[in-house]
Amino acid sequence: MRHVISVLVENEFGALSRIAGLFSGRGFNIGSLCVAETAAPNLSEMTIVTRGSDEIIEQIIKQLRKLVPVRKVTDLTGTDFIDREMVLVKVKANTATRAEVLRIADIFRGKVVDVSPTSYTVELTGDEKKVDAIIELFKPIGVLELVRTGKVAISRTTKTARR
Amino acid sequence: MRHVISVLVENEFGALSRIAGLFSGRGFNIGSLCVAETAAPNLSEMTIVTRGSDEIIEQIIKQLRKLVPVRKVTDLTGTDFIDREMVLVKVKANTATRAEVLRIADIFRGKVVDVSPTSYTVELTGDEKKVDAIIELFKPIGVLELVRTGKVAISRTTKTARR
Repeated sequence: MRHVISVLVENEFGALSRIAGLFSGRGFNIGSLCVAETAAPNLSEMTIVTRGSDEIIEQIIKQLRKLVPVRKVTDLTGTDFIDREMVLVKVKANTATRAEVLRIADIFRGKVVDVSPTSYTVELTGDEKKVDAIIELFKPIGVLELVRTGKVAISRTTKTARR
Repeated sequence: MRHVISVLVENEFGALSRIAGLFSGRGFNIGSLCVAETAAPNLSEMTIVTRGSDEIIEQIIKQLRKLVPVRKVTDLTGTDFIDREMVLVKVKANTATRAEVLRIADIFRGKVVDVSPTSYTVELTGDEKKVDAIIELFKPIGVLELVRTGKVAISRTTKTARR
């Protein structure tokens, strides 16, 4: 089962390496991982997406909580949360394909953030399915380069917020 | 000096842990890191932001290139590239503050992606300065939760693209 795990961690040498090591040590591949600073100084927030048995994930989470720089671990799986990722994708854009690239970007509410005589670079945010869908549409036109952030997630505050 | 490094890597147990270990082993903190799948199966793209002396970064890059699952390492620092990150920020929104939260979100072209009786969750993309700026504006209103993806970067194709 897919798990989305948030880890609040002190900015400390080696924290990331040790956290990633807990997963790989049990044969778990990390599907995506984002780590960046929070509003609090010296604290970073990590969002990890992984796939594996619930029991082993539970063991990993217990071990994560024992690591000194780890302040808080939340397994968002099964809770009500919003997740989003961002992609930058550079697509071949010549006279024949330019209009189609723009049409697809528009439909997905993507933004063209860079233009060259031979390419457009499109920025898009959304859930994984939306990002996968735009990439699939761009593939036959020609994807020159692509970089995804991986998922970040935030809990919904109340059930009334669900729409 | 700040460095932005792209690493193309095979999806393999432990690759992330070893790569992060190369930085922490030399006392480098990773400012942000994103890793996610690419359009090619079995390959992930990693974007690492770190700060440190050019000589040591150069040594780390040489060592990165020797790691078996690493296919390609690019130090984007000093080249012409576009970088973007995304943030999800949950802000206190009561009758007194709601209009102001929306105004700020609008100015930064942020999107409200979740609403509760007491909060708005805003999604925003931009460079680091833009993301920092909106967070600073939201702080006096009340930031309840915040998660950033960290930077992803993509090269500009040609100089004519610079604007």
